Amino acid sequence: MEGIANEACSLAGHWGLGKLIAFYDDNHISIDGDTEIAFTESVDKRFEGLGWHVIWVKNGNTGYDEIRAAIKEAKAVKDKPTLIKVTTTIGYGSPNKANSYSVHGSALGAKEVDATRKNLGWPYEPFHVPEDVKGHWSRHVPQGAALEAEWNAKFSAYEKNYKEEAAELKSIITGELPAGWEKALPTYTPESPADATRNLSQQNLNALVKVLPGLLGGSADLASSNMTLLKMFGDFQKETPEERNVRFGVREHGMGAICNGIALHSPGLIPYCATFFVFTDYMRAAIRISALSQARVIYVMTHDSIGLGEDGPTHQPIEHLASFRAMPNVLMLRPADGNETAGAYKVAVLKRKTPSILALSRQKLPQLAGTSIEGVQKGGYIISDNSSGNNPDVILIGTGSELEIAVKAADELRKEGKAVRVVSLISWELFDEQSDAYKESVFPSAVTARVSIEAGSTFGWGKIVGSKGKAIGIDRFGASAPAGRIYKEFGLTPEAVIAAAKELC
Amino acid sequence: MEGIANEACSLAGHWGLGKLIAFYDDNHISIDGDTEIAFTESVDKRFEGLGWHVIWVKNGNTGYDEIRAAIKEAKAVKDKPTLIKVTTTIGYGSPNKANSYSVHGSALGAKEVDATRKNLGWPYEPFHVPEDVKGHWSRHVPQGAALEAEWNAKFSAYEKNYKEEAAELKSIITGELPAGWEKALPTYTPESPADATRNLSQQNLNALVKVLPGLLGGSADLASSNMTLLKMFGDFQKETPEERNVRFGVREHGMGAICNGIALHSPGLIPYCATFFVFTDYMRAAIRISALSQARVIYVMTHDSIGLGEDGPTHQPIEHLASFRAMPNVLMLRPADGNETAGAYKVAVLKRKTPSILALSRQKLPQLAGTSIEGVQKGGYIISDNSSGNNPDVILIGTGSELEIAVKAADELRKEGKAVRVVSLISWELFDEQSDAYKESVFPSAVTARVSIEAGSTFGWGKIVGSKGKAIGIDRFGASAPAGRIYKEFGLTPEAVIAAAKELC
Repeated sequence: MEGIANEACSLAGHWGLGKLIAFYDDNHISIDGDTEIAFTESVDKRFEGLGWHVIWVKNGNTGYDEIRAAIKEAKAVKDKPTLIKVTTTIGYGSPNKANSYSVHGSALGAKEVDATRKNLGWPYEPFHVPEDVKGHWSRHVPQGAALEAEWNAKFSAYEKNYKEEAAELKSIITGELPAGWEKALPTYTPESPADATRNLSQQNLNALVKVLPGLLGGSADLASSNMTLLKMFGDFQKETPEERNVRFGVREHGMGAICNGIALHSPGLIPYCATFFVFTDYMRAAIRISALSQARVIYVMTHDSIGLGEDGPTHQPIEHLASFRAMPNVLMLRPADGNETAGAYKVAVLKRKTPSILALSRQKLPQLAGTSIEGVQKGGYIISDNSSGNNPDVILIGTGSELEIAVKAADELRKEGKAVRVVSLISWELFDEQSDAYKESVFPSAVTARVSIEAGSTFGWGKIVGSKGKAIGIDRFGASAPAGRIYKEFGLTPEAVIAAAKELC
Repeated sequence: MEGIANEACSLAGHWGLGKLIAFYDDNHISIDGDTEIAFTESVDKRFEGLGWHVIWVKNGNTGYDEIRAAIKEAKAVKDKPTLIKVTTTIGYGSPNKANSYSVHGSALGAKEVDATRKNLGWPYEPFHVPEDVKGHWSRHVPQGAALEAEWNAKFSAYEKNYKEEAAELKSIITGELPAGWEKALPTYTPESPADATRNLSQQNLNALVKVLPGLLGGSADLASSNMTLLKMFGDFQKETPEERNVRFGVREHGMGAICNGIALHSPGLIPYCATFFVFTDYMRAAIRISALSQARVIYVMTHDSIGLGEDGPTHQPIEHLASFRAMPNVLMLRPADGNETAGAYKVAVLKRKTPSILALSRQKLPQLAGTSIEGVQKGGYIISDNSSGNNPDVILIGTGSELEIAVKAADELRKEGKAVRVVSLISWELFDEQSDAYKESVFPSAVTARVSIEAGSTFGWGKIVGSKGKAIGIDRFGASAPAGRIYKEFGLTPEAVIAAAKELC
């Protein structure tokens, strides 16, 4: 019933995943009772429409031969995934609870377990495995060992003949990153041209794909907006599975789930996926599974604020940064320029047990002085400061596209004689991991004059700016206008930062 | 392609919505190019599987008679929704851009507009409507006026003969609530039996449905866990559309979207929908649409914390309260007992332009002294205080199931001679709406000794407890254990609150 299942199965059909066999337990019971109350579609017909081969096993309770035949048939179909619909009785064998929703969510209970044992003619103690069953299954142990030995021998031979390819495969199986991979990351100077971080992200992806054999991914039908195409690769399709640009279609939730599967399949596979940042709402459940399952998925989320302009409030994220900062085991990264984008990719690749979300701008941003890959790795760091003795008059804090605004405000304030520190807080989670001494060196407790600016909800910023500081942000939905105009209308300007700073110091 | 479309269309088929006609613009182009790259399923077959009547108009560009015939046929099918698949050329008429993705996301441009006009033989100025076209359409104005007059006359007659039914219909059309409706809300005393707020929620729903003709809703296959069944009604089904228990199936996203449609259809319709709080992740995009569209949907979200117990981290919300507090125009309510649950429903019904999310416990909670419907309407309020002069030694703040823990800690601290205030912060948004004077009366700025306790992320609490206070919460994923045990393991206890309070005062 879940929409994500249809998204994923539609792609499985499109890709012709012949090795995929799904069993559908057609027991007609859901938690609320008979599925008839909410689910009367023809699942067979739907899956045929999705391009699957469909087999119906009518007696799933005792039709062992039927089940075996279905599996055999499914294996023989090589160009399509197969759905084996197995009609069963839920709680089969239980004399009083079979075929009812009460079997779904709770245990049978001792009495009904006894009755079921009798009914099924199962005279053994709990957890007893009869010898003939054990013997039947045990034959798989030597079989498996032989298969493993055979594979290992084959791989050894392969390694001799195809050194490079074998190393690549090994790297994907073990997850060990190729030595010096991070040297591929592009670097920038303040003289490098201004650019949108979504474009800088594409430069990083295209640099990394040359050194990371397991990097692959794509977008939910926004590749040319998210800037995710890998230029040296073609499309991953049924006939070209060696290519690395995955076309997910408009299926965000399925996309996230598929990337979780890829990430968890082999430690060296590094899937990325992309859409507009606001559409993380469509795939939030998959992102939470990345976090819970410790799956290194890189979420390339562009159009990360009202700065995206004319598409308006339906497309403009407001609460999304806050909502992911609150989610455990997710790295929320909002780079401000080229060096920070490279830093974000470095962190995302190195964090093997954590998904990363990169929030990237649609609009052009200048390359800032003081940003660095090393700084990004600490989550928050000083990009400029004209104070001495760790005692500035005011600390201005920005992330992503608003770091530029903080920098401009600092320039003005310094002209007026103020000692101003500018901090980039690209990732709150990484900053939280730092030592107390480092945190104090960035945000000295004595300095309570703090102004933050971020084109999103101020929710959560209270902790950073403190009771005496000021958080500039957006606590309402956005509006449709070009980026420059909307920033002014919403008060996200150097002037606003300067005014707030002056009130505090 | 989006999963939500399949969820909603599966329900439309199940309900046999014969009046629903959907046009599917089968132009084979998506933003990333030809749909062939990601979407090769048979949409016709899928929709037939979903129980729809499907018609294919092969020439959607100029086949006017074909289109007319399709609409006529669709109208004649009364027991099924109809999908009219209309094969078209995107940008039809544009000589250089037709049939390409470049028509999807950007304007044709002046030159191509000219070429298109010439190609289509359209000699008029921009925005000119030729007289014969105007005349053709204008005939609908008197037709419409006549139909309206006819309906009004019919309704007047109906009103005379069916006074009660007509009043009910009027209330739904205008949105005016029946006088005294709020008297139906149940009230509780500290002597009332302890109960889970999900059960108290069901008492409220069943009380309100007797006085609110537009209240209807249901759960995504968790009715008996969410406690959402209306006892005096049967199931809303194809043959029983007068009933009010809606069975959404396991389709959270579709459920939210359907409730948005119901809420926006008539101001007097008050839809509610339910699932486990953690599964708001599946329907977050629909909840954001409620907020953006100012749709009064009541989200009944049970199993609202680690207190749900054995289902474990996949089912235990952590970041969800914070994530909705950050979302504009959403009321996030977490009632602690019966009076607060009634207050939450009162607020949810009264807030005509705002969706409300009720986070409700699975576990039993005592009825607390000092809670009230009036208090809830302020979002945050004092439930007990043994200080004088608005100057307690410490303020303990709780929400929902943890308010009880704050109360217990206060009892102990008072025994030791401390002046302790306990505040219930059931809704941050409502509290934000209060006057500065009221806020100061609840949280005096001079009192910096503040301890909050909530079984969720501490993200955002910094603003409430201030730099000197302490927020007790959970900043990691949960674990599987009975509620009592897991609360202890995670340090959500009166002892932890007492210890934190003692450090501060």
